Amino acid sequence: MDYIAHLDTAIGRLHEEGRYRTFIDIERRRGHFPHAVWRHPDGSERPVTVWCGNDYLGMGQHPVVLEAMHEAIDAAGAGSGGTRNISGTTVYHKALEAELADLHGKEAALLFTSAYIANDATLSTLPKLFPGLVILSDELNHASMIEGIRRNGGAKRIFRHNDLDHLRELLEALPADAPKLIAFESIYSMDGDFGPVEAICDLADEFGALTYIDEVHAVGMYGPRGAGVAERDRLMHRIDIINGTLAKAYGVMGGYIATNAKMADAIRSYAPGFIFTTSLPPAVAAGAVASVKHLKRDQALRDDHQTQAKVLKTRLKGLGMPIIDHGSHIVPLIVGDPVHTKMLSDMLLEDHGIYVQPINFPTVPRGTERLRFTPSPVHGPGEISALVKALDALWSHCALNRAELAG
Amino acid sequence: MDYIAHLDTAIGRLHEEGRYRTFIDIERRRGHFPHAVWRHPDGSERPVTVWCGNDYLGMGQHPVVLEAMHEAIDAAGAGSGGTRNISGTTVYHKALEAELADLHGKEAALLFTSAYIANDATLSTLPKLFPGLVILSDELNHASMIEGIRRNGGAKRIFRHNDLDHLRELLEALPADAPKLIAFESIYSMDGDFGPVEAICDLADEFGALTYIDEVHAVGMYGPRGAGVAERDRLMHRIDIINGTLAKAYGVMGGYIATNAKMADAIRSYAPGFIFTTSLPPAVAAGAVASVKHLKRDQALRDDHQTQAKVLKTRLKGLGMPIIDHGSHIVPLIVGDPVHTKMLSDMLLEDHGIYVQPINFPTVPRGTERLRFTPSPVHGPGEISALVKALDALWSHCALNRAELAG
Ligand SMILES: Cc1ncc(COP(=O)(O)O)c(C=O)c1O
Ligand SMILES: Cc1ncc(COP(=O)(O)O)c(C=O)c1O
Repeated sequence: MDYIAHLDTAIGRLHEEGRYRTFIDIERRRGHFPHAVWRHPDGSERPVTVWCGNDYLGMGQHPVVLEAMHEAIDAAGAGSGGTRNISGTTVYHKALEAELADLHGKEAALLFTSAYIANDATLSTLPKLFPGLVILSDELNHASMIEGIRRNGGAKRIFRHNDLDHLRELLEALPADAPKLIAFESIYSMDGDFGPVEAICDLADEFGALTYIDEVHAVGMYGPRGAGVAERDRLMHRIDIINGTLAKAYGVMGGYIATNAKMADAIRSYAPGFIFTTSLPPAVAAGAVASVKHLKRDQALRDDHQTQAKVLKTRLKGLGMPIIDHGSHIVPLIVGDPVHTKMLSDMLLEDHGIYVQPINFPTVPRGTERLRFTPSPVHGPGEISALVKALDALWSHCALNRAELAG
Repeated sequence: MDYIAHLDTAIGRLHEEGRYRTFIDIERRRGHFPHAVWRHPDGSERPVTVWCGNDYLGMGQHPVVLEAMHEAIDAAGAGSGGTRNISGTTVYHKALEAELADLHGKEAALLFTSAYIANDATLSTLPKLFPGLVILSDELNHASMIEGIRRNGGAKRIFRHNDLDHLRELLEALPADAPKLIAFESIYSMDGDFGPVEAICDLADEFGALTYIDEVHAVGMYGPRGAGVAERDRLMHRIDIINGTLAKAYGVMGGYIATNAKMADAIRSYAPGFIFTTSLPPAVAAGAVASVKHLKRDQALRDDHQTQAKVLKTRLKGLGMPIIDHGSHIVPLIVGDPVHTKMLSDMLLEDHGIYVQPINFPTVPRGTERLRFTPSPVHGPGEISALVKALDALWSHCALNRAELAG
């Protein structure tokens, strides 16, 4: 067996398709977000502005978060020292779960080491709890949901993205008494479009299905207390399981579900991805508590965030740039070719000190390769102008289309 | 569909079998490990000694680790702000991967958010890289390995625990030219027994198989630089992929694989569990770097650890307690019944301030339910005496067998 030859083939395929990923080595400087230092492969350092981070509100440098982390390290040390069941449950974990349950108006929340594993572990465990469960899943659901749904080979139906007619058709084709769950997202992070939350809840009611929403790109940012799109639309009570992350708008790390007490108890008891892994460090949980608490009140930060996104979109549209605009905070600029996307990203970084990672297949469908900008309250007018000017120049320089590919 | 009834059934089953888990709310106090505060459900606080943590060496309170975490928070903030590919790779992540590659004498290391996800993501991705791969897996492998192996429905063979004849038999039955991988652990954490590393490497050579070892309960603790059992036995170069955690002996959080550069590059490029999740916070990576660096040199701490385990085992054996002793640092005391185990654990906690979690099915086979003690360099003679006396008294009080169930 020539194992190395197989690895060469697998890696070669990525190079051929122009989607081999090179990690950019970045060090954000607390207090100076979105500015960071880029460590060049040759060892030299260069200042850059990060335009593709998911710390959407800059909470990763907020003093209340950092203070809480420092305090927890001094009080409780570095790691938790165990799985949740075996010495790894602390007051910090309990406080965070209480905070999150309150945030979503649910009886309980369950903390995982990431939203990835929260999705994967929960969705793969539900069929054990509801024998015969059929999961109806939006075709653009995040990889972590797909992995969870596929894991144990349970029954599934994939509906076309946001297509309610198709979803209804699939529901109608299922036996009335089969347990069902509809899994979808509130904001799809690559296009920045919203899921039809209310209409899906209506269908769920009509067909007796459970609802599962991924609010990873919405928590902290939408709704009067930052509980997400379902809160904004007053629909939280109609969602059975809400999934969120502590690693994006909340600026720290970790993931969770919020749901009723029995569901949380059952997932807690049956999900290997919850049971058999060391719990989050106390300091991480403490930082997340501080961040969630803070964002329950700081509506101004949320407003700033939306304003920044609108400003950037307006200016790029003014130049005829092919951006997608569904009214969310995410600004995707379609390039449509992996090699061009990488080239643009390299030029922005090298020539303009602007860091935006190319987004390629399989993260997005082939032919829709893009640059995806994430404006935030810490991006000032100067940073926005620099970005707009650089893009304008590059677009002309490379004779790229304007406005044509916009969605 | 009565979804709640299904949840009641699932939870009821656990109660009936006496294996419903109650999390004990514990707060370790930095500088005072293994002492901690137990927050009683009624809100009162009581001092306890933790005897079941996996912070085996007490590194979770080591000043070099805490200092590194504080510094990284001040320098870089709370979270990483992105996945590894999209702005979440920092100098801390790179430094940690370099430190781990060096530790294991490999070309590369790849960091994951936990060893759980490192096992799951790597083992489920290998069949994509080596079409037709057959994974030969020890029957007692950890849940995270089992989940990874099962995930994509790839071919697998389960060999009886540490049974080389059975493994050979299975290897012989496979086509000579089929790609194969043998997955096993260096220390099985529930019995504390060692995997036959060298003999497995010999079989792998004979049959042209790759080797995958989980050293989660060995890294930091075995080998002259703490690289694990394979280092101790001078076998690291014969293992293709080494899996380890940063959450146990290293006292922080995170997991990794160490392997050759091409394997790391391919896993990095193809494993959803690596690609689609926020990377570890810079402070967590920084703490882990400090811990790994420190334990490359602190042999005295490793020696202390082994001495403590020997002292505890000797004293428990002297009282005829049915412990399992395979010469590792883990001290399992077999009770053999989930209800008794829980009762003993409750009495130790309530009456003696000793915290040791009952270990039940599915973590261990039914009929082998146990208390599992993890002595460490921070457990002094006073703590050991208190534990031994308490167990002696309880064993007499409950008229439990001595020595009979010992393995
Ligand atoms: C929609 C969606 N769900 C889940 C996740 C996983 O979140 P986490 O980074 O907490 O693992 C991500 C991205 O990372 C995501 O985009
Ligand atoms: C053998 C083994 N492998 C992997 C893991 C997972 O490690 P982590 O806690 O880093 O997820 C554990 C326990 O947690 C384990 O016991």
